[in-house]
Amino acid sequence: MITTKYHNERFANAIQLVPQDVPPIWFMRQAGRYHSHYRKLKETYSFMELCKEPELAAEVALGPVKEFGFDVSILFSDLLFPLEALGMGLTYDPGPKLSFSLTSITDLNKLKPVEEAIEGLVFQKQAVIRTREVLPKDVSLIGFVGGPFTLMTYASIGKHDGNLSFIKTNQNFVDEFYTILLPLLKKNIELQLQGGAEVVMMFDTAAGMLDPNNFRRYVAEPIAELTKTFPNQIGYYAKNSTEEHIRQIHKIPDLVGFGVDHRFSIPNVLHEFGGKGFIQGNFDQELLFADPVTLKHKIKEYLLPIKDMDPKDRVGWVAGLGHGVLQFTPEASIHSLIEETRKVFTK
Amino acid sequence: MITTKYHNERFANAIQLVPQDVPPIWFMRQAGRYHSHYRKLKETYSFMELCKEPELAAEVALGPVKEFGFDVSILFSDLLFPLEALGMGLTYDPGPKLSFSLTSITDLNKLKPVEEAIEGLVFQKQAVIRTREVLPKDVSLIGFVGGPFTLMTYASIGKHDGNLSFIKTNQNFVDEFYTILLPLLKKNIELQLQGGAEVVMMFDTAAGMLDPNNFRRYVAEPIAELTKTFPNQIGYYAKNSTEEHIRQIHKIPDLVGFGVDHRFSIPNVLHEFGGKGFIQGNFDQELLFADPVTLKHKIKEYLLPIKDMDPKDRVGWVAGLGHGVLQFTPEASIHSLIEETRKVFTK
Repeated sequence: MITTKYHNERFANAIQLVPQDVPPIWFMRQAGRYHSHYRKLKETYSFMELCKEPELAAEVALGPVKEFGFDVSILFSDLLFPLEALGMGLTYDPGPKLSFSLTSITDLNKLKPVEEAIEGLVFQKQAVIRTREVLPKDVSLIGFVGGPFTLMTYASIGKHDGNLSFIKTNQNFVDEFYTILLPLLKKNIELQLQGGAEVVMMFDTAAGMLDPNNFRRYVAEPIAELTKTFPNQIGYYAKNSTEEHIRQIHKIPDLVGFGVDHRFSIPNVLHEFGGKGFIQGNFDQELLFADPVTLKHKIKEYLLPIKDMDPKDRVGWVAGLGHGVLQFTPEASIHSLIEETRKVFTK
Repeated sequence: MITTKYHNERFANAIQLVPQDVPPIWFMRQAGRYHSHYRKLKETYSFMELCKEPELAAEVALGPVKEFGFDVSILFSDLLFPLEALGMGLTYDPGPKLSFSLTSITDLNKLKPVEEAIEGLVFQKQAVIRTREVLPKDVSLIGFVGGPFTLMTYASIGKHDGNLSFIKTNQNFVDEFYTILLPLLKKNIELQLQGGAEVVMMFDTAAGMLDPNNFRRYVAEPIAELTKTFPNQIGYYAKNSTEEHIRQIHKIPDLVGFGVDHRFSIPNVLHEFGGKGFIQGNFDQELLFADPVTLKHKIKEYLLPIKDMDPKDRVGWVAGLGHGVLQFTPEASIHSLIEETRKVFTK
């Protein structure tokens, strides 16, 4: 067991369910393509270099913390590196492309053994270490891995959406792949925690498209296996979820928290699922394209019902977006949302 | 008020909340591109002709009823004809394309007045009349219209997904468009009911992407306006919903029912929202691509928990898919799902 020290007090409070006025703020993709700091680095370095050079990954992660004052930072990396580490040749053009796909059980023989594959992920540990070194002491750092189901969809159909019938109806195949993938993810999570990640988020983009039976089999049960090894160190996010999915996720023992997209009401989610771990979300990232006056109105409309709750009833809340910051989002909108959030909740 | 006679007893029971063993069966897109009957007609006629010639639309709708024995049929048409009727020049290539888009309030001046536009939708009434004439007496017939929000997304960005920030943050513009669109939809619904549609379903593909505030404004409130005029004659479906959306839909007075996609548990939905109108859904349409043995297993896994409910607790249920039948779905899978459903629920 790797013990965790939470650097940001508000984030620590959220995880430990301590009531507080002002929530910690962390946005998904906060270091990405909308930010001039990132775009400038991108003129000189490729996406792959930015992820794989610990020095650069740290610089990318630090950028938005310096500019916007986020409470929590996140390893700059990509979901798909475990597949690359298994030998699936990853390139970006600009979307991700794998050199082959897994479409039958025999394809699994093409993959490297886990002990060898994990070498291909050591750079993430180094990136976490370096990011921790450059981050302000009071900013938390989280790591991340792709959810097994989403990695399965990329490995077999090259993307996370579209017709998933092949995967949904070939449980044997998925089970076999999971016997390779889950041990690798376990080691991957361990590396990031060793490097100093306080929590490892699992992003499972595609999982919200599953019916309740397949969600249990392909998502909730495998994740429950991982939280046994890393109690209170794994968080979870899938977009396009229903409460049905959230109910299953919420029941996973020792999950440290989860996020919900903007289609949910945070007061309702806190009411139904609060008091167990953190709940991250969920301002609609598309609203950040509004003109400044409308945006302020939308932010208040969103925040005031949460503000109206007793701090005891909103323990665990981590303020964030429903999904990631989108390309072309005005930086001023990010500033507004963060400022308004702190202003509304400061007594 | 146009009074309704329900042709199919099971569908009538579902609407009137009468307990029954075997549910009515109706699939979205049951007359579409997976079916050899449709594909054969498509060799001779364009999609537009199949929709606009009442004789042909009736033949398309009848095909799957004859082959698979559905309890409920649905007008063969398209969501986008109200936009065409407003003067927005619709073509299919093969996806829908409009001749211009609405991107500002001044664009709304290009639209025809409602009284003129409605003439462009009279063919739907004739198609309903003709479909009713050829359908077996014990098969129900429903009509449909597009949801106002989904029509707004097509009218402004040409599709129902992608970044909807423009619409989400320009409420004025949406409100103005709705002052034209809602009266037209009202007349469109009226035409279909006059033609003999027992219920008119509103399909609102894009609405599941809205946050709770925008969902209330752009979806729940406008639909509540329409159900005032047509109490117990309008049903609703949006994919990618959360319970948050369903809760708002469920509260609309005099909505005749709604559908949910495969991400929900039907027993849970019936438990929480049952006893008010019909609830349609929701076998995952992608599972219909499974091999016959796996499919049978998946169907049973899906049906048995519903079968385990007391018929009193599942009043209102209309058996169907989570979304529409997909292209290339094996016809044998449709037969299996229908046969298994009737077998499982027949005492």
